[in-house]
Amino acid sequence: MTQATIKTAAMLAIGDELLSGRTKDKNIGHLADMLTVAGIDLKEVRIVGDEEEAIVAALDALRSRYDYVFTSGGIGPTHDDITADAVSAAFGVPCEHDADAMRLLGAMYERRGMEFTEARQRMARMPRGARHIPNPVSTAPGFVIGNVHVMAGVPQVFQAMLDNVISTLPAGAKVISRSIACPFGEGDIGTLLAGVQKAHPDTSIGSYPQFDGQRFSTELVVRARDAAAVDAAAVAIEAMIAAISAEKDAARAKDLGTGELA
Amino acid sequence: MTQATIKTAAMLAIGDELLSGRTKDKNIGHLADMLTVAGIDLKEVRIVGDEEEAIVAALDALRSRYDYVFTSGGIGPTHDDITADAVSAAFGVPCEHDADAMRLLGAMYERRGMEFTEARQRMARMPRGARHIPNPVSTAPGFVIGNVHVMAGVPQVFQAMLDNVISTLPAGAKVISRSIACPFGEGDIGTLLAGVQKAHPDTSIGSYPQFDGQRFSTELVVRARDAAAVDAAAVAIEAMIAAISAEKDAARAKDLGTGELA
Repeated sequence: MTQATIKTAAMLAIGDELLSGRTKDKNIGHLADMLTVAGIDLKEVRIVGDEEEAIVAALDALRSRYDYVFTSGGIGPTHDDITADAVSAAFGVPCEHDADAMRLLGAMYERRGMEFTEARQRMARMPRGARHIPNPVSTAPGFVIGNVHVMAGVPQVFQAMLDNVISTLPAGAKVISRSIACPFGEGDIGTLLAGVQKAHPDTSIGSYPQFDGQRFSTELVVRARDAAAVDAAAVAIEAMIAAISAEKDAARAKDLGTGELA
Repeated sequence: MTQATIKTAAMLAIGDELLSGRTKDKNIGHLADMLTVAGIDLKEVRIVGDEEEAIVAALDALRSRYDYVFTSGGIGPTHDDITADAVSAAFGVPCEHDADAMRLLGAMYERRGMEFTEARQRMARMPRGARHIPNPVSTAPGFVIGNVHVMAGVPQVFQAMLDNVISTLPAGAKVISRSIACPFGEGDIGTLLAGVQKAHPDTSIGSYPQFDGQRFSTELVVRARDAAAVDAAAVAIEAMIAAISAEKDAARAKDLGTGELA
């Protein structure tokens, strides 16, 4: 297992509704979970509105920097769905009605006795040369061009498309993580934890403060691609928590006049 | 009311836990809501991990492009809290223990009978020349330097800090929005809706598909800074929905053989 096998990814979530607060994104967290399980490092996320220039600029920055880019949103049939056009522009290819997508969608609407309107035909548009991402929920496919995977914004559809994408990616070395509940706030553990991190450089130790309205506690998460490294760091963290507990107990005993010094 | 008064903003959410899926961000949606109410346009969001280079690059891109930048995360007392260092680096000033913040934090820990540890003192670090953002929840202040507003990642603290920030910003012209439930999917309305958008260029008409597991409906949202423009577009959308309903009713009647043509 070498670092060279680790793939990186970025996400671009597209939609004015995400920036206005009208819709609260649910796709970023889901993609993050799925990529972690797949052993792919999500390194950056951007959210932009339905503006071609903004989408193209973000796509160009991300697709050159990371192994995979995943987008959500903007591939429906309305006037503000411009993701296919923007992706085509970024790749410098025409955006056109894909023959297979036209057949799939045409057949679906015929089965349902619905008209295959001009608006609905927009959902068959994709960059020339793109491959489909199947959409088992509502038929209209996502697509892949280069390293960019274009998916729907509706969470049920995004998730179904992602299931179809993720299995096609070469899996990275999986990240193993271990979570350790720590009853102390970050201020109590910060200096010692920095020492643990330094002593275990092959791991990434995250510290996530939790606040119950009264006091902070912390969840500590050790991540690494090597199980033995995770174990070693976890042992060190548990020893750290025990040492802080003992110190606090001693201080309390001293305050109460019942400690060794009393 | 001129376009020139409209301020733009970007958000930078910082934290490995957001990219691993360990934590699901709650601050982006909250900021989006608050800025919409304040009449400030949120134009872009980025999420990066706890890496100085990534934070500095994102900050530099965003602070030069938008009127305001808001960050969340990375200002706690642990080794992975490097936002203050990264912001200092971006602005080319030293990151140092702020005297006022040291006093505030020192007094708070003294009141609580807790040690003001080296780790806790980290929370008093900020770029030289920064102003505090008060933190009524847990004392450790956020800070403002230039157009960058640095806030905590814990949602309760982020929200409290943002309340203190938002009142200091010159309010933009507020965006008025009107939401219209549409019983038809985007494919039924796309072409007509594009016409409504073209006829009402001062408004932004968003179309948000909803999927109940069986069929799509749509929520249409008209936004503008001018109430009369919102009203006019809303009337046009309601007429559009009525026209589609009538057309569908007529088609159904015809199918049943009870229509005018029967």
